[in-house]
Amino acid sequence: MTQAATASATGGGDFHVFDTTLRDGAQMEGLRYSVADKLAVAELLDELGVDYIEGGWPGAIPSDTEFFARAADELNFKHAKLVAFGMTRRAASTAADDPGFGALLDSRAPVLCLVAKSDMRHVEQALRTTPEENLAMITDSVRTGREHDRQVFIDCEHFFDGYRHDPVYATLVVKTALDAGAEAVVLCDTNGGSVPSDITAAFTDLRARLLGAGLAPERIRLGMHAQNDTGCAVANTIAAVEAGAMHVQGTANGYGERPGNANLFTVIANLETKLGRKVLPDGGLEKLTRVSHAIAEIANMIPDEHAPYTGHAAFAHKAGIHASAIKADPALYNHVDPVVVGNDMRILVTEMAGRASVELKGRELGIDLSGDKDALDRITRRVKELESKGWSFEAADASFELLVRDEVEGGLPRPFTLDTYRVIVDHDPNGTTVAEATVRVDVEGERVISTAQGNGPVNAIDAALRSALAARHPRLAELTLSDFKVRILAGSKGTDAVTRVLISMSDGEAEWTTVGVAPNLIEASWNALADGLAYGLNRR
Amino acid sequence: MTQAATASATGGGDFHVFDTTLRDGAQMEGLRYSVADKLAVAELLDELGVDYIEGGWPGAIPSDTEFFARAADELNFKHAKLVAFGMTRRAASTAADDPGFGALLDSRAPVLCLVAKSDMRHVEQALRTTPEENLAMITDSVRTGREHDRQVFIDCEHFFDGYRHDPVYATLVVKTALDAGAEAVVLCDTNGGSVPSDITAAFTDLRARLLGAGLAPERIRLGMHAQNDTGCAVANTIAAVEAGAMHVQGTANGYGERPGNANLFTVIANLETKLGRKVLPDGGLEKLTRVSHAIAEIANMIPDEHAPYTGHAAFAHKAGIHASAIKADPALYNHVDPVVVGNDMRILVTEMAGRASVELKGRELGIDLSGDKDALDRITRRVKELESKGWSFEAADASFELLVRDEVEGGLPRPFTLDTYRVIVDHDPNGTTVAEATVRVDVEGERVISTAQGNGPVNAIDAALRSALAARHPRLAELTLSDFKVRILAGSKGTDAVTRVLISMSDGEAEWTTVGVAPNLIEASWNALADGLAYGLNRR
Repeated sequence: MTQAATASATGGGDFHVFDTTLRDGAQMEGLRYSVADKLAVAELLDELGVDYIEGGWPGAIPSDTEFFARAADELNFKHAKLVAFGMTRRAASTAADDPGFGALLDSRAPVLCLVAKSDMRHVEQALRTTPEENLAMITDSVRTGREHDRQVFIDCEHFFDGYRHDPVYATLVVKTALDAGAEAVVLCDTNGGSVPSDITAAFTDLRARLLGAGLAPERIRLGMHAQNDTGCAVANTIAAVEAGAMHVQGTANGYGERPGNANLFTVIANLETKLGRKVLPDGGLEKLTRVSHAIAEIANMIPDEHAPYTGHAAFAHKAGIHASAIKADPALYNHVDPVVVGNDMRILVTEMAGRASVELKGRELGIDLSGDKDALDRITRRVKELESKGWSFEAADASFELLVRDEVEGGLPRPFTLDTYRVIVDHDPNGTTVAEATVRVDVEGERVISTAQGNGPVNAIDAALRSALAARHPRLAELTLSDFKVRILAGSKGTDAVTRVLISMSDGEAEWTTVGVAPNLIEASWNALADGLAYGLNRR
Repeated sequence: MTQAATASATGGGDFHVFDTTLRDGAQMEGLRYSVADKLAVAELLDELGVDYIEGGWPGAIPSDTEFFARAADELNFKHAKLVAFGMTRRAASTAADDPGFGALLDSRAPVLCLVAKSDMRHVEQALRTTPEENLAMITDSVRTGREHDRQVFIDCEHFFDGYRHDPVYATLVVKTALDAGAEAVVLCDTNGGSVPSDITAAFTDLRARLLGAGLAPERIRLGMHAQNDTGCAVANTIAAVEAGAMHVQGTANGYGERPGNANLFTVIANLETKLGRKVLPDGGLEKLTRVSHAIAEIANMIPDEHAPYTGHAAFAHKAGIHASAIKADPALYNHVDPVVVGNDMRILVTEMAGRASVELKGRELGIDLSGDKDALDRITRRVKELESKGWSFEAADASFELLVRDEVEGGLPRPFTLDTYRVIVDHDPNGTTVAEATVRVDVEGERVISTAQGNGPVNAIDAALRSALAARHPRLAELTLSDFKVRILAGSKGTDAVTRVLISMSDGEAEWTTVGVAPNLIEASWNALADGLAYGLNRR
């Protein structure tokens, strides 16, 4: 913390939050952005208040070229600057003549980030050129960028491995880039193999060598790009800042190749709340949770429930015996106030639930139970009784809310009540399997029967139910089933087993989960499904 | 790294890897273990080679009491010691008279881990006792444990917050526990709000204070328990070891409350491959990936593809422009050799299974595949193809064995083949639900039809199948269904989803697991069920 305070004093406001979600983050397996997705992500990042947004590699990736063309016309950043990523010019040419470099200038991005080699082995084996030519490529590329009024960053690929292998040459690369006018030189732990003490040692040693080489302290402008292969990407970034880095790179939610990049949102929250460095504009930090979830949505990734600061479970407590202490002083149990990062404190209702945690949980739902001891007792008793039978409300907030409202407000209006259902699954001699469900429900006093087929029995019931309710509840079309989990509980020896089903649904804005428990899997699914639809139709 | 080397030199072989997957890891939202799950997880952790396995809180949680009773009878660890978690005795009593403390001794666990308060504010607000009584509780509890021949660890809850608030009292708590004979005192970052420089500073300062208080250096035995609320749990643990900690706590895959605990598997891999400290027995590290995935399956959690070291994508390279360089010298692009942690580099092998691991796994089953390259290729291809469709052989050894024997020995004799089945689930207007299945099978050339009812559809199929086969296969009566897990994979938006079912069966001597995958839950269950019965009837 002493180091942090010092760095903060010297760093002043001249600190860069550099996002590379759209470039290095897009290396993540299974992640594909459309150009429209990229534009939407860039707008969210600008709204959050990052300083630089690296949008891709124009000239090398056709959709990135298109992104930059549209970004120049359509995006109007309030705060951020758009960055085009590329390589230093090729060996034995000039930046002015290099078509790859030309594409970067054509992108109209005001900032360039150029990857350069700082590990001798990569210079020889990947670039297949000489150490001297590599330095000339850096100087020429930075200068040419500057001549075209671009800010230029140099990303030193494989820096820490290279530094271990040959610190003299790696230092020379950094000095060459700074001498040529690079805005900052970013040290990349490309293979992600470092732990914080490695980062601290390298930054400290490099700084000493650069000072020894005659560089003035204020001209030593270094950044950090961490990958998460040791699970230390965030910590490595923090260690770099404590050792004097004034530029941090990372991605939304830590997206990236292999175990990912440094999660920029965690880095930002740590810098602001732990190191006391304000790195976002006013009001930025409280947008963190929303922006994190919105980007996950655009990237079509399931948000990480357990992500630090921004995850749905980041501030979730299994209250148990300490519920009353948490109620008295939540600050003793949260490392920061969740509101600071736009998140909420959640109390999980568990087997050990006492009245205090039920009351806390009710408050979360906007229901004040403190004045109604009887209701509080009834709810606590029902929760305990149901959980002892295998229900689990901690992962099923919607079921808990339905239960509370049943006890306090006479219940949410149920859009339908079940009369009967029948499901048939048939496997014929050809090996074809068909599932068909018939449901009979009461909808606002009218009895409706409907039959539908589906992939499986639950899917068939869902389809039949939707067809029965479609006319009265057109909003049903917006609700989608997003997850389905089944677990056999307790006795689990054939007849005594109980099945627990968790169903998650979404209406595009929110997601909610309901639970159903019964000896019969289909019955448990039905319960969870019916509650999930009822909850969804009552939303707003 | 200098610090690490020093610590390693002084630490010697006296280093503890302490797993708390089954206790603190079970605090994770949405995670519930059955007692059988816990026994299976404990066996895997012992096989990996951790030193201590904290199994739960006997006396406080009924299923934990049952776990310890069964563990004492059934588990036969090769390496690990089982740990019972609990609290120091209550205020104004004695450990000998405290029923909670008695339950710990009754658990028969050879090691106790007792949580104690080291933050004055928690002493006052949660324990509601005096600072002196808190110290007396620690001394009395440690001594009483020692008198009953137990090793005793003290977990100092909220240590780092407490240390910031009142370092004198926090130091006194640590010294009191060490003086009373605690094996080690574990500093817990319970709220998870620390970054590595905080940990380094606190360990360094505490050590100085303890030395100043007259404690001999070799008696300063400290551990680290980190939570991941700043995304730094692994790094905080590494920082603690570099600052002299000789005991690390963590959980499988980082399971735990809020953003989770330190991922013990990442910590272990970092300690062994980055800090050069051997902390597992010979051959342990290469089991890391397999154990990580097997525990995820048991916990019914989706394995984190991007987990450091053990994730499916941990060494996945989007080769791009560097493909040939990677092929020429993969060491330049991997921070460690994936084989070291039992993982694969995915640029060469797409799915988890390479020929090497198939060969290894075959050897486990007593089938030597090294001489039959063709069979090895066929099996590897089939495994890859099936796994790409959602099958998972990691937790389904019996299915894997059936597949291998199909390719090598013409297959195990199948006691029956399926012709057709039909399942009907009926929910009548009185709310009664009935499941009925009719199966038609060929048993040794004879066609048999049988109908049975059951708790649910799978149970009904199981019953009908047993009744159809009873005459020819009386051993069937010995086979019981012990677990059933369902997960929806991939698309999960209605029609594209695929269902994976894992079924575990037992004959009283052994337990085996089979896997089935199909769009239809019933069909997937049927596949797993049929394989499980076939495997069971072929045993011996």
